[in-house]
Amino acid sequence: MSKRVPIPAVRRVLLYPRDGARAFEATLNATRWLREHAVAVKVCALTEGAGAEALRREGAEVVPHCDGLAEDCDLVVALGGDGTLLRASRWAAEAGVPVLGINLGDLGFLTAYQAEQGEIGLAAAVHGELAWEPRLRMQVELQRGGRVFLRETACNDAYIKHGEFPRLLSLATDVGGQFMATYKADGLIVCTPMGSTAYNLAAGGPIVAPSATAFTITPICPHSLTHRPVVVDAASLIEITYEGPVEGGAFLTIDGQTSVSLELGDRVVIDAAPDPLRLCPPEYSVFRVLATKLGWSAGMGGRTR
Amino acid sequence: MSKRVPIPAVRRVLLYPRDGARAFEATLNATRWLREHAVAVKVCALTEGAGAEALRREGAEVVPHCDGLAEDCDLVVALGGDGTLLRASRWAAEAGVPVLGINLGDLGFLTAYQAEQGEIGLAAAVHGELAWEPRLRMQVELQRGGRVFLRETACNDAYIKHGEFPRLLSLATDVGGQFMATYKADGLIVCTPMGSTAYNLAAGGPIVAPSATAFTITPICPHSLTHRPVVVDAASLIEITYEGPVEGGAFLTIDGQTSVSLELGDRVVIDAAPDPLRLCPPEYSVFRVLATKLGWSAGMGGRTR
Amino acid sequence: MSKRVPIPAVRRVLLYPRDGARAFEATLNATRWLREHAVAVKVCALTEGAGAEALRREGAEVVPHCDGLAEDCDLVVALGGDGTLLRASRWAAEAGVPVLGINLGDLGFLTAYQAEQGEIGLAAAVHGELAWEPRLRMQVELQRGGRVFLRETACNDAYIKHGEFPRLLSLATDVGGQFMATYKADGLIVCTPMGSTAYNLAAGGPIVAPSATAFTITPICPHSLTHRPVVVDAASLIEITYEGPVEGGAFLTIDGQTSVSLELGDRVVIDAAPDPLRLCPPEYSVFRVLATKLGWSAGMGGRTR
Amino acid sequence: MSKRVPIPAVRRVLLYPRDGARAFEATLNATRWLREHAVAVKVCALTEGAGAEALRREGAEVVPHCDGLAEDCDLVVALGGDGTLLRASRWAAEAGVPVLGINLGDLGFLTAYQAEQGEIGLAAAVHGELAWEPRLRMQVELQRGGRVFLRETACNDAYIKHGEFPRLLSLATDVGGQFMATYKADGLIVCTPMGSTAYNLAAGGPIVAPSATAFTITPICPHSLTHRPVVVDAASLIEITYEGPVEGGAFLTIDGQTSVSLELGDRVVIDAAPDPLRLCPPEYSVFRVLATKLGWSAGMGGRTR
Repeated sequence: MSKRVPIPAVRRVLLYPRDGARAFEATLNATRWLREHAVAVKVCALTEGAGAEALRREGAEVVPHCDGLAEDCDLVVALGGDGTLLRASRWAAEAGVPVLGINLGDLGFLTAYQAEQGEIGLAAAVHGELAWEPRLRMQVELQRGGRVFLRETACNDAYIKHGEFPRLLSLATDVGGQFMATYKADGLIVCTPMGSTAYNLAAGGPIVAPSATAFTITPICPHSLTHRPVVVDAASLIEITYEGPVEGGAFLTIDGQTSVSLELGDRVVIDAAPDPLRLCPPEYSVFRVLATKLGWSAGMGGRTR
Repeated sequence: MSKRVPIPAVRRVLLYPRDGARAFEATLNATRWLREHAVAVKVCALTEGAGAEALRREGAEVVPHCDGLAEDCDLVVALGGDGTLLRASRWAAEAGVPVLGINLGDLGFLTAYQAEQGEIGLAAAVHGELAWEPRLRMQVELQRGGRVFLRETACNDAYIKHGEFPRLLSLATDVGGQFMATYKADGLIVCTPMGSTAYNLAAGGPIVAPSATAFTITPICPHSLTHRPVVVDAASLIEITYEGPVEGGAFLTIDGQTSVSLELGDRVVIDAAPDPLRLCPPEYSVFRVLATKLGWSAGMGGRTR
Repeated sequence: MSKRVPIPAVRRVLLYPRDGARAFEATLNATRWLREHAVAVKVCALTEGAGAEALRREGAEVVPHCDGLAEDCDLVVALGGDGTLLRASRWAAEAGVPVLGINLGDLGFLTAYQAEQGEIGLAAAVHGELAWEPRLRMQVELQRGGRVFLRETACNDAYIKHGEFPRLLSLATDVGGQFMATYKADGLIVCTPMGSTAYNLAAGGPIVAPSATAFTITPICPHSLTHRPVVVDAASLIEITYEGPVEGGAFLTIDGQTSVSLELGDRVVIDAAPDPLRLCPPEYSVFRVLATKLGWSAGMGGRTR
Repeated sequence: MSKRVPIPAVRRVLLYPRDGARAFEATLNATRWLREHAVAVKVCALTEGAGAEALRREGAEVVPHCDGLAEDCDLVVALGGDGTLLRASRWAAEAGVPVLGINLGDLGFLTAYQAEQGEIGLAAAVHGELAWEPRLRMQVELQRGGRVFLRETACNDAYIKHGEFPRLLSLATDVGGQFMATYKADGLIVCTPMGSTAYNLAAGGPIVAPSATAFTITPICPHSLTHRPVVVDAASLIEITYEGPVEGGAFLTIDGQTSVSLELGDRVVIDAAPDPLRLCPPEYSVFRVLATKLGWSAGMGGRTR
């Protein structure tokens, strides 16, 4: 199991809401509650306007961008779903600040509390009763013509996939310096354990428990009778070379957010990011979320605990 | 990638051949070669007779059983296939002695050298040019009525499966203290990375690279639309309770060698064994063996290296 | 879609209950209702005793065995689950008599009515408002030493599987006179569309809609990276030869009811049975049953109709 | 097995080569051979130029387009691979003319002869020794706003898939007038038995023997734990409604050749085409092609016949 690291009582919180009225209201409530408990509050990623004004009246500092804010905080609170938390994680993890998710929709894999329990979460933070667990992230480097063309970290996955026209890509793949296979497929996914329940699940990959330190390599619709996903130690360098069929016929997508067109011979090099995400984990397991969202263990009998 | 640990020049070798004329001849040759290079040789697991006599004439000490012999050796050499090496591993790993496999049949996942290269392997051992890598093993405990009924270590896997009559077993499974699922299936496999290319492969599980430290949990023919295998950190305790349908309707099998009939309520508890197997690894990757034996990457294109 | 054949108003009904108090009571009620509507009633498969007496008092003819009874009936009514209906189907299909299932447990794939709607079903039968649809059955012949050793028909499936000790069977398989593959597997399933939701489902086979006239051939845990099931026209002869590994190491099981130990060289020859099962189909589709029992389409969105 | 229909000795042949020097040379040779045997030869799909001139000198009638030509022929000969044969099949099947494939590349699933055996094929045609077998085709209708927007026949498959940006499509699917599922997936494939070894194979669908009359419905990367493909009787109408997420976010592709952007609410309706493809089948089975191209039965043992 993951080691849990206690978080000292927090004094400075950064709120990161997603768009929309529900998230705004949750942000307003959180601000009010935190200020009443003498916690300094910053809110980022909000456009100016009446909403920003209302938050300021409650004592929040409202900042349009999140750059460099995490460093001065004890905790980032993402208000939204798994997607909002993932976006916050990209800069929070770099800054080494733990992230707590308050879920405003369906059960999430990453968010620790549902909306109606949000105050319980904030109280735990203020009383020094929260803990974080490390979650493996990946570093993705796109090398073009012998140079680094792009370098990003990802919490979930990186995948190479054809563009508008379905094509069988040719993707030569090495693991730990050894040749593994040249995939002929619609694409190839490399994911962290967190990302194993995202696109990897749809492509037929295994579920990887969040505390594992392994990457999963799963082809997307390989033209092959052998569909088998491969799980490798996170310390193994993964190198994928785009061998065709055509210039610009494939895209590299990182955490579903950055997308780059590939040139022939481009190399995508993946290894573990030096800093893990510091996640305040849900109390329920990934399997309970799977059961609720995707019918995991339907027909397997319904013991509940 | 796995860390490699150099093995100092060996002076005492334990040979462990499988049955049959071919293995006997390989053992005779190895004895001769090692004695010429001033290495002390013990041979175990051989019945007395003309063969034992011939080996003694070459200078080997011939011992009927392997118990307690590994401790006094620098290296165990298994002469046979992956199965022979697995059997040797059970006691060699306890003793902390590295194991080198010389393969007398088809390409193996574990054996470092093919028969015709066996002398190269022995020379490397004698000149201090071999290295071992750690391979995760599992500890399997069968608890019955609150007591430990059986405890064994395994290199490949442990599985629970129905006996002569196919039945849908009910297997409640917890991971890291959290409920995962109650499988309704013909059985359930828990395997190490080494074991991922054994029965797990047949049951549809992923391939796990040998250097990973993770267990894979794969159901055998679950009566369910969700066949998804689960990969967990090797530090997570796995607990499986046999809930039925009938007394004696299921067996626990460990590394394909030990088999025990289960009683209702029996708990199988699995975690990482304290000592890894110290394996002198093959030079070729698991993927090359898969390609040769099982057509891995057929239709994926044939880059060779 | 299946053609539907109307069933003229029935005058003679054969009731086939499963064991147990609930089925007995349902049989008693059905007898009473049918006698009130001037329908002749036979009840088979019941042991003598107080129950048989009670049924006779209601006007039923009680017969210990079912042999030859179906011929004199207009309709067989199975009272139990899919298993009860399957057992009745074996002799009802030979006799060309339609079968109606009244389900006393969970939703079934084959039973037309749930218990509480049983009277609706009987009324439809009496008023000539029922219809049957043909369901493909298979003929299974075991040939030993050039002779027919066993010949049976099956509604669901026939499978060859290892016995108590898991072994990799070698099963040479021809389809329509052409070699298909020599499976190395725990076993091999051949199923009808009805049987596709039984053991085939657990082994990873596709769902085949009931009106299709095709057999599905699905290996059980093949030691192979290619797990792909094969669907063939029901007019294709399927021939499977048991090539080993050992005498008596495998069993042929037909519809989960007949089981025979195989000898080396035994051939199992399967083709379509001349007469289909005449099934009064459920009003709900196989997909609705899958959704209820096994979470089909969980996470696919929940349109209901 | 498929019924085989003898083809009377052919007197008029239409040659349909793919592009390129190799196909041109094969066409020239076939023309020469056929003219020597007093067979009338038309060649279509060739651009004018030196090649067309050379063919005319050998006695061929060279026509730029294939429209309406098949009606006047006894046999269409496709010179290329499976793709060339598929293209020829679209108009040859409408005209009820059998198609013979001469393969200029790797082994094909549809082509009857390899290049070096082409003359054997032509001789069989001239001597009345060829036969054709029916192969199921599908009719695909795109309905928009209550009207037929597009209607095409396909030999292999029709699939709906997201465009440039991966999105989870919502595809409500009915079979035979009954609701089956609303797929949330990258896309959905419906294929004929011929098409089962094309994109369906990559998406994890079963292999369907060519003589079966069934459609297979296979989701592409469903966000679901239940990946199970469904096989339905070819007499069942399949209706798929594109429910989102966005206007223009999906494409319908037919036989990999026609591609149309979908609007919200578009319905794709698929049933069996009235006329099958009349295919001169390969002598080797689909399984031998799979073994050669994709390693089918690797690790299953290598019986050859």
